[in-house]
Amino acid sequence: MNSEGCIDFFFKPESIALIGASPNPEKLSHTILESLRKMNFKGKIYPVNPGYREIEGLECYSTPAEIEDRIDIAVFAVPAKSVLNILKGPVGNIKGAIIVSSGFREIGPGGKRMEDELKALLEEKDIRAMGPNCLGIYDTVSNVDTFFIEREKIERPARNGVSVLTQSGSFAAMIMDELANEGSGVARVVSYGNKVDVDESDCLEFLSQDEATKAVALYIESVTNGRRFLEIASSCVEKKPVVALKVGKREPGARAASSHTGSISGMYEAYEAAFRKAGIIEVSSYEELKDACKVLNRYSPVEGKRVLIVTDGGGIGISIADACEEAGLKVPELSEAAVKKLKEKLPAFASVRNPIDLTGSVRDEHYVAALQETPSEEYDLAIVSLLWGPPLLTEGVAEIIRNFAERCGKPILISSPGGKFSRELASAFTETGIPVFFSPESAVRAAAVLCRGKK
Amino acid sequence: MNSEGCIDFFFKPESIALIGASPNPEKLSHTILESLRKMNFKGKIYPVNPGYREIEGLECYSTPAEIEDRIDIAVFAVPAKSVLNILKGPVGNIKGAIIVSSGFREIGPGGKRMEDELKALLEEKDIRAMGPNCLGIYDTVSNVDTFFIEREKIERPARNGVSVLTQSGSFAAMIMDELANEGSGVARVVSYGNKVDVDESDCLEFLSQDEATKAVALYIESVTNGRRFLEIASSCVEKKPVVALKVGKREPGARAASSHTGSISGMYEAYEAAFRKAGIIEVSSYEELKDACKVLNRYSPVEGKRVLIVTDGGGIGISIADACEEAGLKVPELSEAAVKKLKEKLPAFASVRNPIDLTGSVRDEHYVAALQETPSEEYDLAIVSLLWGPPLLTEGVAEIIRNFAERCGKPILISSPGGKFSRELASAFTETGIPVFFSPESAVRAAAVLCRGKK
Repeated sequence: MNSEGCIDFFFKPESIALIGASPNPEKLSHTILESLRKMNFKGKIYPVNPGYREIEGLECYSTPAEIEDRIDIAVFAVPAKSVLNILKGPVGNIKGAIIVSSGFREIGPGGKRMEDELKALLEEKDIRAMGPNCLGIYDTVSNVDTFFIEREKIERPARNGVSVLTQSGSFAAMIMDELANEGSGVARVVSYGNKVDVDESDCLEFLSQDEATKAVALYIESVTNGRRFLEIASSCVEKKPVVALKVGKREPGARAASSHTGSISGMYEAYEAAFRKAGIIEVSSYEELKDACKVLNRYSPVEGKRVLIVTDGGGIGISIADACEEAGLKVPELSEAAVKKLKEKLPAFASVRNPIDLTGSVRDEHYVAALQETPSEEYDLAIVSLLWGPPLLTEGVAEIIRNFAERCGKPILISSPGGKFSRELASAFTETGIPVFFSPESAVRAAAVLCRGKK
Repeated sequence: MNSEGCIDFFFKPESIALIGASPNPEKLSHTILESLRKMNFKGKIYPVNPGYREIEGLECYSTPAEIEDRIDIAVFAVPAKSVLNILKGPVGNIKGAIIVSSGFREIGPGGKRMEDELKALLEEKDIRAMGPNCLGIYDTVSNVDTFFIEREKIERPARNGVSVLTQSGSFAAMIMDELANEGSGVARVVSYGNKVDVDESDCLEFLSQDEATKAVALYIESVTNGRRFLEIASSCVEKKPVVALKVGKREPGARAASSHTGSISGMYEAYEAAFRKAGIIEVSSYEELKDACKVLNRYSPVEGKRVLIVTDGGGIGISIADACEEAGLKVPELSEAAVKKLKEKLPAFASVRNPIDLTGSVRDEHYVAALQETPSEEYDLAIVSLLWGPPLLTEGVAEIIRNFAERCGKPILISSPGGKFSRELASAFTETGIPVFFSPESAVRAAAVLCRGKK
């Protein structure tokens, strides 16, 4: 019988069997083998395929039972039917399975029957399993990567503090690709697909105790066991921030069928209430979830909602201020004392209200002067907006803002919209670990997450 | 006396004088000269600077009066004081001026006095003027570019149908850079700065009659003459869609001063009401305005709000559907007849509800089959979402979707989130003129603009 027990071994495996391993570069299993090697996975890798004696320099086994070792994770990259056949054989040395294969419940009644059979087999053989119909685990801590899409197509983010849980593989791939592309990272990503066994609660329970995970981002289509989820989430939130995006809020298909409308919309309200009760920060869009990941990689939630805005473009400053007010944040006037100090330290062309506008005549040091001379007790976090057009602004500004950020103890978020040139210069910030947002609204969404997250 | 008359000559100049021209590549005026040449401006260019006889192969004049020609646009790229001094001299041959110089009203009381003097001088000499404190005109129709930021820093978008009017130069630069970077274009962009003379109404009046302009995007901090604006905007909306972003809605500084609160929030409500009365599509964020520009370059507003969603990632499809419902759009169930036809033409792995999910097993032709087999009377526009992970999906899909888009007569919007690889493949769409949006929500914002814009 499966128990709601520990699934830690999925996140610190000493051995991985790759069932369906193949030397053919077009096979999913080949991409997985390559990924494990690129990740520099430190444990044992056992290819399993009766057709080969050796794959890519590794001894290949006919069946899992032939492997004289405990297998922490057996990755099943074979057709649905083969998954069942292999599980019917001797698999006593398998502790956990990641079944990436599709062709189960998601394809209709026939697949549903196969998934029921799969479930029964897993329970009989006492194997914990993720999937089927999933991408599995991408883990920058244990160096595991079972995502079977090539790195040329989907970039892999570097190590950082946010772990992501998602049913949807396409969602996992999309957010990983974008986070990597925007210079941000992750701790662990789990795409658990059809949840024949391991579900969001199991994973969240692990992440709750996981020191490598500083914050958790959830993409939720449905929760299997509401009560258990609520309990585990509440306890997780005591230790680290949890953000969640619930999708399928008003399932358009079901909505059209009027008889379902009430129950479905009631369901979403139940999720909303549960999130609130557990202290989960609910976000309402993919964009917001991504912004949350980026900011929580670096910063913890804050008390208060007062935002200091420093900009070199008046129009952008106003847009950011508008977006702040729209999101329920405050852009307070600065004290007279602060204004006086700012006037002394900044050139006459600067506007020393909040937003502080350094204008197109800005030099690197003005950004830091503006931050330094504003008393830290007058704001809870700062959004620093840079347009890179001003002739005297250089990428050196990243280093001096970072130094200030380390001293000041308040979150500093960078807004740097624009094209190629701006992206290049903004990478000076991401290299120092400071999160960069590429539209005025994006920085504000991230700020709002920090302001809503204080337990 | 200035009249509220025709300012057409700003948009079809036969001669441009560059006052303050310089061979020094670090001077703004040098960037402008270079830009005019890169734009392949067909008219005459007259550098003016008493210090030179020749600049970059062009004869240089000591004063504007020395030029024996009518000057349609005199670009003033000299310090504020020099602008006044030159205007006090003989300038009878100047019709229009673009004063990019800062140092006027925006710097305080001293600058305000200079701007008053500037205004009086312009009226006395009967010169129409844009600025001061502006970037001026970027025009893909007349090949004019007075934006003094180098192209390496701020990319210039290609020719297309949307014209942009803005007080804020930083806003103009930002949206141009991003539109260019995302493969989108513009017709004409005007950054009119402090509005000593030419304002949003003058420009909108011209654009209203302008055949090269298919739609207008406004970034508004304030409107000079509300009644005139309302009249001109209403008449423009009869001919082409107008979208507007009002910024400084709740000016945070003024808000803190509680005595101003009422009047300011009342002011925003006045703008809102005016936009509604004129039939302007109000957008609420920079992101939304950019999305609007991209979609209006290609498509006209539609009757109805029914969105067909075709995707290869189930999770993304649901996110798009959620965002549609959130934005007041509909994602209707397809008719039984449509579902039947789709089932016949699509493989068994596809889900043929709306969203139609072609899954990771998708091939290029499935996208077109899904679009072709859904009767066009069942939707008003389609959002086609592509994740590029699926192994059998190629960039060839852009060409066949474009062919379908040309036949079907309904707007087709592409959603293609992701990193480098996705951006590269998505450029196959932008090359065919089909707008591409880089997040699920971004495509929906654009769709909502089309659905709100029908006169």
